[in-house]
Amino acid sequence: MRVLGVDPGLTRCGLGVVDGGLGRTVTCVAVDVVRTPADSDLATRLLRVSATVEEWLDTYQPDAVAVERVFSQHNVRTVMGTAQAGGVVALSAARRGLPVVFHTPSEVKAAVTGSGRADKNQVTVMVTRLLKLPKRPSPADAADALALAICHLWREPMRARLAEAEARAAELARAHRAKLAAAARRNRAGDSATGGNR
Amino acid sequence: MRVLGVDPGLTRCGLGVVDGGLGRTVTCVAVDVVRTPADSDLATRLLRVSATVEEWLDTYQPDAVAVERVFSQHNVRTVMGTAQAGGVVALSAARRGLPVVFHTPSEVKAAVTGSGRADKNQVTVMVTRLLKLPKRPSPADAADALALAICHLWREPMRARLAEAEARAAELARAHRAKLAAAARRNRAGDSATGGNR
Repeated sequence: MRVLGVDPGLTRCGLGVVDGGLGRTVTCVAVDVVRTPADSDLATRLLRVSATVEEWLDTYQPDAVAVERVFSQHNVRTVMGTAQAGGVVALSAARRGLPVVFHTPSEVKAAVTGSGRADKNQVTVMVTRLLKLPKRPSPADAADALALAICHLWREPMRARLAEAEARAAELARAHRAKLAAAARRNRAGDSATGGNR
Repeated sequence: MRVLGVDPGLTRCGLGVVDGGLGRTVTCVAVDVVRTPADSDLATRLLRVSATVEEWLDTYQPDAVAVERVFSQHNVRTVMGTAQAGGVVALSAARRGLPVVFHTPSEVKAAVTGSGRADKNQVTVMVTRLLKLPKRPSPADAADALALAICHLWREPMRARLAEAEARAAELARAHRAKLAAAARRNRAGDSATGGNR
């Protein structure tokens, strides 16, 4: 399975493609950072991010896209740009029918370092080690994109299995309720056949 | 000039097309609200918003797109969805080379009601009156989209004139600096011709 991880942003948008192998083996296929000039207008910057993501989807043909889910940050202006860039990325993936999953920063940190409160440096160190990279990916957005892809590869089978189990449980519950309803109907039919005895 | 106003959102996204005529005359061409189911995943919802906006751009061929600029709201989750939807709308417009301008809620309120602190009801009442609509546009997102388009139609000429004046002033300043530099060069050349007199 191949995953494109995206750390969305307008100033810097991290992109990383990772292949998952047997067990927890992961391989880096590509990593880069797109930058858009701060003095361009917002629409032009979004267009640039979108065009680059489209290019990567064409070139690397991932099976899924993992995007960082942003909750809140210090700078509201930055958060908006990040959310808008994330939206544009999700759209490109959805247009091709690719699954898009949003992972929170702490899910990503926990997946690659074992702790949801790891700092940027620990994430970069672990990503470099896990992918056996000759040097640390830089800037941090590049490492984050790779971490997102790894997080997705490792969490997805579990998530899919859970979703399947939940769906099966819901199906069983539905069947059980249907059986109870049928029994109730039969009882009422029996009541009317005997003219009712209340 | 024809403007598509968009009040972005995932639950409800308001769309309104307004034509500007002579002076401050404005006419409503179309207004509607797109809704996306809350139980769909984010990428699917963004795809639905994007597809609808693309349809409107094809059908109504506006000259510009005005989008509400969101700063912050009570609910961070809602803000993110709003920002993502806004990003997707801006992208569709930018892809067609249409200008996209973001207006703040207070700019919009000030444009249509005269006060940046007007409430939703006042905005709806003024939009209904300005566009001579037979009844109030509903829900509020529909009225907001029309208000955005009107705001853009009325502010844009002023904004464009200001930008032009600023560009002219910058050009004059540049010419003046060039003249000073040339004079300084001539003085230095004169100095060397007379062998310098310092």
